[in-house]
Formats: sequence, structure tokens, C-alpha cells
Amino acid sequence: MSSEIKRAKKGWSVPVSKMATNTFNPIRNIVDTMKLTPHPDKPMIALSIGDPTVFGNLPMPENCEVAVTEAVKKRSFNGYAPSIGYEDSRQAVADYVSTPTSRVDSKDVVLASGASGALDLCISCLADEGDNILIPRPGFSLYKTLAESLGIEVRQYDLLPEKSWEIDLDHLESLIDSNTRAVIVCNPSNPCGSVYSREHLLEILQTMERKRVPIIADEIYEHFVFSGQTYYSMASLSENVPVLACGGLTKRYLVPGWRMGWIVINDRNDALVEVRGGLLKLSQRLLGPNTLVQAALPSILANTPESFYRETLEYIENNANVFYQHLSQVPGLKPVMPQGAMYMMVGLDMKHFPEFKSDVDLTERLVTEQSVFCLPAACFQYPNYFRVVLTVPTEKVSEACERMAAFCREHYKPINGINGKPDLTSKVNGLNGHCADEICVGK
Amino acid sequence: MSSEIKRAKKGWSVPVSKMATNTFNPIRNIVDTMKLTPHPDKPMIALSIGDPTVFGNLPMPENCEVAVTEAVKKRSFNGYAPSIGYEDSRQAVADYVSTPTSRVDSKDVVLASGASGALDLCISCLADEGDNILIPRPGFSLYKTLAESLGIEVRQYDLLPEKSWEIDLDHLESLIDSNTRAVIVCNPSNPCGSVYSREHLLEILQTMERKRVPIIADEIYEHFVFSGQTYYSMASLSENVPVLACGGLTKRYLVPGWRMGWIVINDRNDALVEVRGGLLKLSQRLLGPNTLVQAALPSILANTPESFYRETLEYIENNANVFYQHLSQVPGLKPVMPQGAMYMMVGLDMKHFPEFKSDVDLTERLVTEQSVFCLPAACFQYPNYFRVVLTVPTEKVSEACERMAAFCREHYKPINGINGKPDLTSKVNGLNGHCADEICVGK
Repeated sequence: MSSEIKRAKKGWSVPVSKMATNTFNPIRNIVDTMKLTPHPDKPMIALSIGDPTVFGNLPMPENCEVAVTEAVKKRSFNGYAPSIGYEDSRQAVADYVSTPTSRVDSKDVVLASGASGALDLCISCLADEGDNILIPRPGFSLYKTLAESLGIEVRQYDLLPEKSWEIDLDHLESLIDSNTRAVIVCNPSNPCGSVYSREHLLEILQTMERKRVPIIADEIYEHFVFSGQTYYSMASLSENVPVLACGGLTKRYLVPGWRMGWIVINDRNDALVEVRGGLLKLSQRLLGPNTLVQAALPSILANTPESFYRETLEYIENNANVFYQHLSQVPGLKPVMPQGAMYMMVGLDMKHFPEFKSDVDLTERLVTEQSVFCLPAACFQYPNYFRVVLTVPTEKVSEACERMAAFCREHYKPINGINGKPDLTSKVNGLNGHCADEICVGK
Repeated sequence: MSSEIKRAKKGWSVPVSKMATNTFNPIRNIVDTMKLTPHPDKPMIALSIGDPTVFGNLPMPENCEVAVTEAVKKRSFNGYAPSIGYEDSRQAVADYVSTPTSRVDSKDVVLASGASGALDLCISCLADEGDNILIPRPGFSLYKTLAESLGIEVRQYDLLPEKSWEIDLDHLESLIDSNTRAVIVCNPSNPCGSVYSREHLLEILQTMERKRVPIIADEIYEHFVFSGQTYYSMASLSENVPVLACGGLTKRYLVPGWRMGWIVINDRNDALVEVRGGLLKLSQRLLGPNTLVQAALPSILANTPESFYRETLEYIENNANVFYQHLSQVPGLKPVMPQGAMYMMVGLDMKHFPEFKSDVDLTERLVTEQSVFCLPAACFQYPNYFRVVLTVPTEKVSEACERMAAFCREHYKPINGINGKPDLTSKVNGLNGHCADEICVGK
């Protein structure tokens, strides 16, 4: 007996809310419909999973374990904390994020269930159904999921791969209207691995100051930058633009499952008085994150040794270099060297892969033939790229690169036949081959 | 320089969302406006705090500590879990809640950030702005907070103190219309301490079956019943009514800060197919509760010794008896003996306390004069009662009762003067003194 018949018979029909219907994870929607059948003779290498703990090669710092274990044993952190978090834990975050030009206090910190929870609080505090917020493209898919489930429109501003994924500020500005409530800026970036320069961050802030749009700074990868790069928090560079900065333990401390995130309210000229009150009220809906991890926060943030941060970053940067060196030699691929975070975007020169309709198609076949899974950037609303994670064991990186190279060599088709004739199409379009990104972007 | 002037000068005005504005905690709103100045010579006794851990007299079970510590040390539970929770943890909950008449499986369980998070998922999955849900009065204030922040109307059905807080089913039924999406039933109850009989639960289910309204069963106090009482889960008593049951570790295991809750989807005739999908989608917004506690769940639920449950309940029941015996002797007070959970409601015969405008007024003065704080039941939308918590150390219970008795003796005014004349007003209204609840209820 089918569902409908059974229900009709019993007269029960329980409809689902619009909010649930509108909650939509683009990654799941794409990945779940892909046919991911690895080659039977080749062990699978998943370069798709944005969880740095899955391979076991990147353990959390020793003192995280000690701090949480002590919190459990003390038996004084089992009760309800204030819904915005323990005072001591918030002060620890304030000390951690304060800079000489952006000092904050415990009252400026709201703890949340992961940076996802922090982003949810910020978005739902700033925008209503019918309003819009601006988000990056390519960008972390949760922004869209969270906003659209609340009926908030997202408008995607372009990032520029040829400028290491800086924001196309003219495009961003063109999207702002009187219903724009916030712009989300992700730096360092998932999925791009970009780290914005001081100058670019100042340009962003100038634009927001002129347009009077507050910033939600997704800084979950704060300080997670490669050698030669400097990380600047958004709030440290402006005295005027209100910034809600979202961070957490997830990435830097390699404990995403612990769900410890925070919002730092960088108010300017009391512009965020109502928003601050709103965040406190919204925090009372879920009553804050796990208290054991809250209690461990001060020790984790203060006592994690420099060597842990350095070694983690060296490992990931080394992987980035291996990926980049290999993949930039592969015909049809155009990796964009990351400057931080845990990801690299790789452009696909799709005109050379005429067998495949899209990045989704190509990455699916890469699994079938080579058992390597890269996340198609369609998941980030950005076709003709894929994302690889840099947290996989280094020996798997080389193996994965070799298989990807073999795959591309097999499927790559030179344009205009096999005789190396000049690519007239490209010339007509004004492209000279040194930057294939416009083609790759496919916009 | 005032906020407004500073902002105007800089041209910044960041409005707060309707959702944040509409998020409203009735308890905070009442308590924060009370003048709570304890008597300087008497140490404060807070009978208001619904957190069983604050006095240190009710420790969590030993094996909870062991289970979480082991989860930390294993270092295999730091990554992201599925957004609905680890399979093993969900299976453990399924085993824990299954009964011979309501068997569920891991696929029927969604883990959430506390029972608050579970309730939030259920409400936001079933109802939209403009819909309504039915909630008990007196009732846990979070139902109202969660629903109204989403623009969902709450309609409050009456509980009957003279029937140990059973539901007034005629009243409940009269509130249902075509926009009613769910009814929340809390059993055992905060704030009433009631435990519904099998017969009453069946009556509730029959009403819901006739009206085709699904039930959100708030069962965070499941099994938390005093001697002579039997706990029945809502789902175990119906084959036809769809029930989303919300539970968690919070109360029974005395770890509210750990934020471990769950939804058990008791589907009937596939009535909840869409709702199940909606819950899964909504769970992806926050990506589930803390993984260390998730990993500890199977051991906690399976290995906590019977003696722990028994001793905790004996302690609380003993406190209930002490409170009841004392307070039922106090003029003007009408305690309602609880059958479970951690609370007792005490009626105030306000006509005998003409000095005070309300329960809020009276409880405020009780702090000023006797340093005893009882939560005015206005916090539960129910005037002329207050709630005491039963988890305070027993020696404080006696001391608190004595102070409350002294306070009432001082402020109690016999009706119609001091000569013990018959209370004509009451007779006119058909009251004979053996049940003063209708007066106390003040409806």
C-alpha cells in the first residue's frame, strides 16, 4: 500500500513548513545525485571532504584534550551557562581576537553552536523575509542555506580568480539596494583559499562605509595563512564600519564536531545597539553551546603552543605546493594557488573536455575511472572548477595528482584538431592563453 | 553624546530583524524587571532556578564522566558527525525510548542541541508564520519564545490544578482551527510536576486523532516520576497519532549544559514522510550537537545504574513531601502535590494578601523580607501561583518553608475582618473552601 493511500485511509496529512521546504543544501543536492562508483582496482581518495579530521593525519593540539577532560572532571560545568556563554569563556575569546585597533570585551562576544550557529544568529538578526544579503560566489554553501530557509534573498557577488579571488567590488556594489541588510565576506576563504591583503580589505570597508551596509565577517579560518601572508581581521581595519565577526575552534584547532563558535560584535558609534540586543535574545532560543567546551576555551585559546599552529600550516602549505606543481602541468587544468585556509580551486578548461557537459559530469567520471573525488564547484554556484582539500595525507596527494593527470591526458582534446593549429576561437574572444580563467569561469 | 546623535552623525543605522524583535523570553522579561534585594541578614535561598546542578547536591552519574572522558581520549570524535547525529548514538536513543508498542530505529532519531534545539526543529518544521500551535498554560515559556520568534501564533490550553494539572480537553479542542499545526504536550511537566495517567494520555490521543493534529511530546522528564506513579510515553499509547517526541540527557542525567537532546519521529501510516525530510534538512542548518557527548550517549543510556535514577528521584520526592507538608499548613498558600519532574506549583489565595497586586509583587517582597525567591507563575502565563524547584538541598527546603510561613503569617488577612465571620463572598460565588483553586487560578 503506498504512502498516499495509507494516509488517505487514515485521513492524516501532516504538512511540512515553508522554512523546512526552503532549507536546501546545494552540496548535498549535487553530490547525492552524482553516480559515485569508484574504480574497483583503485582505492578511493576523497579530496572532497572539508573535515580536516577524517584522515587522522592532523590531530587536535594535546592541550585541547587536557582542557576538556579537566572540565569534565571538575563537575562544575554541567549546568546551564548564560545563553551567550560563560563570562570567562567570552573574555577568553575577546582577548584572543582583540587587536590594538579593535579592542573588544567579554560583553561583545556571543558563543554559539559552531561558526554555523554564529552565522545563523547574525543572518537571522540582521535580515527578514524579503530583505537581501550579499554573499560571495564561489562561496560556502551554508550562507545560502541559512538565508533562504528564512526567506531572505541572497545576491552573489563575484570573486575574481585572476586576482587571487579578490572581490569584484563594482559587481558587489551594483547588487546593493535599500533592502540589503549585510554583506558576508569570507577571509581566509572556503572554497578559494584566498587571503585578502590589507589594501583589499580597506577597499571593501570603504565600499561598505559609503553604502552603509554592515559586514558579517566569516573568519573561521583566521590566522590560517601560508608563509609570506599576513592575516588582518576585518574589524581591525575600520573605525566606522560595524562588523559582526564569526569565528570558532573548528578549523584552527581541528575539532569541527565540538561545535564551538562565536560572534564578536565590533560596534562602531553605537550602530549595533539594537543588533546586540537582538543577538542576545536570539541566543536564548537554543541556550548556547556545550558547556564543557566552553569551560575549556580559555585554556585552549591561551595555551596552544605556537608549534602546533606552525606545523599544521606547514603540512597544509606543503600539500598546496604539491597539488599546485603537479596540477599546473596537467593539460586543461588551471589551479589557483591558495594563500591560506584548507582548499584549492582548480579551473577546468571545458572546451578541451568536450566529452563532459559540466564540472559535475567530469568529476563524476574521475571517480569512475580513477577513484578520485573532487567537489565540483557547482556546489559553490561556480561552474567549471572543482575544489580539492589540502588536509589529506601528503602521500595521497601525489597519488591523486598522478591519477588526475592520467585522467586529463586521456580526455583532453586539443582545439581544432590534433595538429596544434592556433586556437582561433580564443583569439576572436581576445584571450591569449596566459589567463584562461574567464573561460573556466563560464559566466 | 547619545547613541542616536553619534549614529546620525556617522549616518549608520543597522536595523534589527523582526525575528530577533519577536524573540521574547517571558521569564527574563518578568524577572529582570523585579527588584530582587534580599534581606541583608538572611542568606538568599533561590527556589527559582530550573537548573538541578546549581547547588552541587545532585551530581551527574559517575559513568557520564567516564563516557565523555573516553570519547575525548579516543580522538576519533572530533570531526563533523552527520547533521542528525552519529548512527550509533541515534541507535542508542532508539533502544532507550522504544517500547513494545512503539518500536523505533536509528533512522527515526534526530539529535539536537538540547531539548530546546529539538523543540525548535519540531516547531519550525511543522508550522509557518500565520499558523498556530497549541501549548499548555501554565507551560514552559520556551514554547512561546520559539514559536513567536518565527511568527507562529501560540494558543494556550488550560491545565486544571484541581485535577493534578490534567488538560482541559474541551478548552484545547475549542482552540483548534484549520491553521493548527501541532499541539505540545509536556509530560511529566515543567512547571507543574504533573504525571499523566494512561487514561488521560489516551483521552488526549483520542482528541488529537479526531482532530487530526499531530503531537509534539515534550518528554524531557521521561521516567522522572515519584513512587506509585507510572510513566507512559505518548507514542507508546497510540497506533494512529503521529508523535514527535523530544527528550534529552538534561534532566534525568543532570547535565543541562551539555546540550544533548533528541527528536524521536513516531510516524504512523507514513503521515510524517515530508516532516521527516524537513527535520533532516533543518538539522543541516546547525550540523548537530557536540560530538563528544554524542559519542558518550550509548554508554550513558545503557550503563547508568538503576541506583542513580532511584536515589535522585528519592531525594527530589522527599523534598516535594517536605515542601508540601509545610506549605499546605500555611494560610493563603495552596501547594499542588507534584507526581514527578522537579517542580511544585503553589497557589496564592490573593484575596488574603490584599497588600500585593500580583504573584510578581508578592514574590518580590518575599525576597526583600525573607531572602527566598520563588518564580512567579506569571512567567508561565499563569497568575496567582508561584513555582518552587525541588532540587535544592533538603536543609534549605525546611529553612525556606519556615521563612515563607513567617512571611505569609505576617501578610495574611482573614476576609471580613478579624472575628472569623463566615466568608460571604465565597459563599455567594458557590465556593465552599475545600477547593480554592478556582480563586487561585484567577482566570
